[in-house]
Amino acid sequence: MSDASDVSIKGSPVWATIADLLRREIAEGARRPGDRLPTEARLAARFGVNRHTVRRALAALVEEGLVRTRRGSGAFVAEAPTEYPIGARTRFRRSMEAAGRVPGKRLLSLETRPATAEEAAPLCLTPGDAIHVAEGIALADGAPVALFRSTFPAARLPGLPGALARDGSVTDALRACGVADYVRVSTRITAAAADPVEAGHLHLEPGAPLLVSEAINADLDGTPVEAGTTRFAGTRIALTLHHP
Amino acid sequence: MSDASDVSIKGSPVWATIADLLRREIAEGARRPGDRLPTEARLAARFGVNRHTVRRALAALVEEGLVRTRRGSGAFVAEAPTEYPIGARTRFRRSMEAAGRVPGKRLLSLETRPATAEEAAPLCLTPGDAIHVAEGIALADGAPVALFRSTFPAARLPGLPGALARDGSVTDALRACGVADYVRVSTRITAAAADPVEAGHLHLEPGAPLLVSEAINADLDGTPVEAGTTRFAGTRIALTLHHP
Repeated sequence: MSDASDVSIKGSPVWATIADLLRREIAEGARRPGDRLPTEARLAARFGVNRHTVRRALAALVEEGLVRTRRGSGAFVAEAPTEYPIGARTRFRRSMEAAGRVPGKRLLSLETRPATAEEAAPLCLTPGDAIHVAEGIALADGAPVALFRSTFPAARLPGLPGALARDGSVTDALRACGVADYVRVSTRITAAAADPVEAGHLHLEPGAPLLVSEAINADLDGTPVEAGTTRFAGTRIALTLHHP
Repeated sequence: MSDASDVSIKGSPVWATIADLLRREIAEGARRPGDRLPTEARLAARFGVNRHTVRRALAALVEEGLVRTRRGSGAFVAEAPTEYPIGARTRFRRSMEAAGRVPGKRLLSLETRPATAEEAAPLCLTPGDAIHVAEGIALADGAPVALFRSTFPAARLPGLPGALARDGSVTDALRACGVADYVRVSTRITAAAADPVEAGHLHLEPGAPLLVSEAINADLDGTPVEAGTTRFAGTRIALTLHHP
């Protein structure tokens, strides 16, 4: 089989023609967001070119954001980020459902222990006061989209760990503990690079960008009932704000 | 001079003792955010150890987020992110001043051309309508904190490029064009990895996490007057939201 990646056919190099074909397959829905692309070897065989040419076509699609690569697992059609509205009524489960995704949560740890100074402040507690700490993975359609770490005042919510372990939903667990409703008071957003453990949980490369959201939720009297940090896979979630 | 990085002295290895000393100097303010640390060679001479031991101490401080390294320019005491409130009244200049930073802007390009479909939509224009496109670097205390790309409806604001080139402030340039006031309508926030050009402008490593904010601003009649994307150095800025 001949190869001519830098030779023009009707004005464009072979790699560009291959990129065009793949682009069209994605645009027409033959390859959908999240689909794994065939291996370089299979694409090379399909188009009758060498792997270098395929690699160049894929690199162009990665550059455009149409394709993402994951080390050791190949190339995938990029998914558009799920829109996650942030506001006073922020609810993970409801937002994911509104975006047409199936929400899920996997609890990794749940403990009750004295708060450090840094943990006590957002909950308006005194360092040493007992808090519940829940850590886990938030899922959309079964795929990890974020790591969360939530803290709750233990004296006020003694039954929370049981309720959270049963159900997973913070809203339902708070309701089971007598907090009928709560509102988001503040959110602080930064970006960070995923460390290897975070990357592993979120199926990202180490160093991949995370969107870090630190939020405080209070009951309708304004008393904090939850303070948490959520580390979203930065390209899978878009936080959206509408300013009233 | 002897070196014993893995040998315990009073229970901790030498590198940990060096990390402790540097940590204390930072905590006590002897080394302030943004200060460059002495080179590995000078620290090795100061503590009478080899550079491997110094490197291990610095790695521990980097891991904690207390120290950041920049390729080719050494290690620096990490700066706490500047808090940047996002809401209906978002103003870069005023926010930076409120955070005790001196705001600045460096315009990189300014052009007037037909809008693509993607550019027309947020401004409620038709593809092909003329827009002004301003790109540049936002500064705090003279250091780059973000790259911005703002688009404006050209038919409505013919004099905007001149006003923007004179002053740099979007608020002042809009006022000079008859838009007395404007409000933020929506913000969409994602995270991305800095490409080499972005990293160069922001003095980051390529791949460093960026906080990407896409915002639409409208006049008081609700007509969009600016749509822009700001790519913040993700560890230098924290976007803060207070939910009314």
